Amino acid sequence: MTNRIYNFSAGPAVMPMPVLEQVQRDLIELPGVGMSVMEISHRSGPFEAIIGAAEADIRTLAGVPDNYKILFLQGGATLQFSMVPMNLLTEGRTADYIMTGTWADKALKEAKRVGTTHETGSTADTNFNRIPRDDELAFTPGAAYVHMTSNNTIEGTEWHRVPQVPDDVPLVSDASSDIFSGPIDISKYGLIYAGAQKNLGPSGVTLVIIREDLLARSSKSLHTMLNYTIHAENGSLYNTPPAFGVYTLGLVIKWLLANGGLAGIQAVNQRKAGKLYAELDRTGFWTPTADKASRSLMNVTFRLATEDLEKAFIKEATAANFDGLKGHRAVGGMRASIYNAFPEHGIDELVAFMREFEAKRG
Amino acid sequence: MTNRIYNFSAGPAVMPMPVLEQVQRDLIELPGVGMSVMEISHRSGPFEAIIGAAEADIRTLAGVPDNYKILFLQGGATLQFSMVPMNLLTEGRTADYIMTGTWADKALKEAKRVGTTHETGSTADTNFNRIPRDDELAFTPGAAYVHMTSNNTIEGTEWHRVPQVPDDVPLVSDASSDIFSGPIDISKYGLIYAGAQKNLGPSGVTLVIIREDLLARSSKSLHTMLNYTIHAENGSLYNTPPAFGVYTLGLVIKWLLANGGLAGIQAVNQRKAGKLYAELDRTGFWTPTADKASRSLMNVTFRLATEDLEKAFIKEATAANFDGLKGHRAVGGMRASIYNAFPEHGIDELVAFMREFEAKRG
Repeated sequence: MTNRIYNFSAGPAVMPMPVLEQVQRDLIELPGVGMSVMEISHRSGPFEAIIGAAEADIRTLAGVPDNYKILFLQGGATLQFSMVPMNLLTEGRTADYIMTGTWADKALKEAKRVGTTHETGSTADTNFNRIPRDDELAFTPGAAYVHMTSNNTIEGTEWHRVPQVPDDVPLVSDASSDIFSGPIDISKYGLIYAGAQKNLGPSGVTLVIIREDLLARSSKSLHTMLNYTIHAENGSLYNTPPAFGVYTLGLVIKWLLANGGLAGIQAVNQRKAGKLYAELDRTGFWTPTADKASRSLMNVTFRLATEDLEKAFIKEATAANFDGLKGHRAVGGMRASIYNAFPEHGIDELVAFMREFEAKRG
Repeated sequence: MTNRIYNFSAGPAVMPMPVLEQVQRDLIELPGVGMSVMEISHRSGPFEAIIGAAEADIRTLAGVPDNYKILFLQGGATLQFSMVPMNLLTEGRTADYIMTGTWADKALKEAKRVGTTHETGSTADTNFNRIPRDDELAFTPGAAYVHMTSNNTIEGTEWHRVPQVPDDVPLVSDASSDIFSGPIDISKYGLIYAGAQKNLGPSGVTLVIIREDLLARSSKSLHTMLNYTIHAENGSLYNTPPAFGVYTLGLVIKWLLANGGLAGIQAVNQRKAGKLYAELDRTGFWTPTADKASRSLMNVTFRLATEDLEKAFIKEATAANFDGLKGHRAVGGMRASIYNAFPEHGIDELVAFMREFEAKRG
């Protein structure tokens, strides 16, 4: 008998039940170790096996090429907003930022503290309701890198292609809210980063996948904890890592591998989002906010005719155990965040609830 | 029936069993919430209650004055080595570092990246086996701050007094390895920081207690995640915090409050360390490495006559389920880390085991 509710939170977000069950079962004594995963030394064999397996499983899951390092860091995507330019925006060069929403703008603001930046492809004029076309993107020749936000959590848009950047310019992607939600060609990126708390596990661990040649850019004058090269050389163990987070993230990766990998989860995500968008498109009672071609499979944003109606919907939904449907305060409306671990039957039940709500008020 | 072993690891380290049991019991459904603590939004009422209680309980436990902010950050003490000078070492001033060991030196190295530093009170000439006397300390007039390391994890020494610093100079303490192991007069410090993984909970959360007037020093040009003022203004929720870590740390604080507070745990710690040092002093078979007056209650470091004997001891102890007794690779020998949560009967059993070992080899 469970009291669990449907959690549409944008992050931290719902986690796979088999992962939660394993974490719970092994919490006090990791099998064969006799201590909690929170108690073991990060220099011990058991922890080396945990972090090693997490890395190896990520390589298998996403086909990460050998010339990429996988790092487990702290500080979330927000610290990456700073670390990316600190490490990669070298003297005399420009960093290009594709402006697709609130988080892209926050990333740009930190880069401006480091050096010269250039903003391109902004869709601000339509409230970031779409991803720019390639012909709207103008990159700086010889840019230090191009920064993109693969999924815009607040605006409900997602890139469904990899933008065309010049051959010699590394593409950096903030993939916090759609990482490993489907197949990804890592080789098209110079660096990918993601806070764990949406698709990878608990908050407090940040995944960074970086092409090795880019490590040469990290200046020796950088502070130790802000230097990708130091973390890479030490296998993410320069200092004590967020051990519980790495462990749990590793279990989430194993759960993905056991459930069809990235192609498998993509099919599920397309089906889940497809059902919800179909309902939003059905009668005109609801107004999905993202442009059709840019719709996110992870964050489904929508409005109702009036704010009063929206308030009523959120209130009734919460009472019916659909939690976290309120849109981000910056944009209002509703948002259903339906990451990898969100169960498909939760979508079916939400759609049924929405249909009832429409029948009463429509 | 448990397979748990005695864990003398220097950190991550043993945690209180009642805390582990509560974390396990409530892992899938936080009572009254219906979700895991890893799944709830950091903007939700339940999480606000968790972080609010952690802060309030720390204030109660340690008597934190109202003019101090309590922050829950990421990156461990190592990131604080950088954040302290970035925020507090303002233009034209000098930061004084009391040089008591490996970690003090690491802190100094990051400060040198920021500005002018001055090293004082070094006990390097005796391998950092003691804490300097007040008459060995020479502070810079008008220093930006004085930095100390309250317990030296590797060398097994601990400050048993607060050093006398000039009235107008804030004292900054890296208390990672002895925080809340006994009463502390917070008002004598400008800033105290501690990685959680020794005395406070799991790795991945860092406690910072900072006097409010010092926040005025944080430059607006600092990167967001490296700026104490931003974290203070946002109640540690500028971005997603390490929620599971904050939750578990909060349970550890409640465990301390329920067990006699800081005076209560100090009595236990004195008794535990007292028994172990008494055994080390008993016959001359063992050689405790720290000067008597500087001995740490948290990390008890000792040697045997030969490295072969040390290897044999560590091997036999490990086989007898006394784990993590090997000294830090920088200094060799043995180290028993016996933080707050280390059970007293584990000391009794170790002492008995040591006595047997001596009887066989002595």
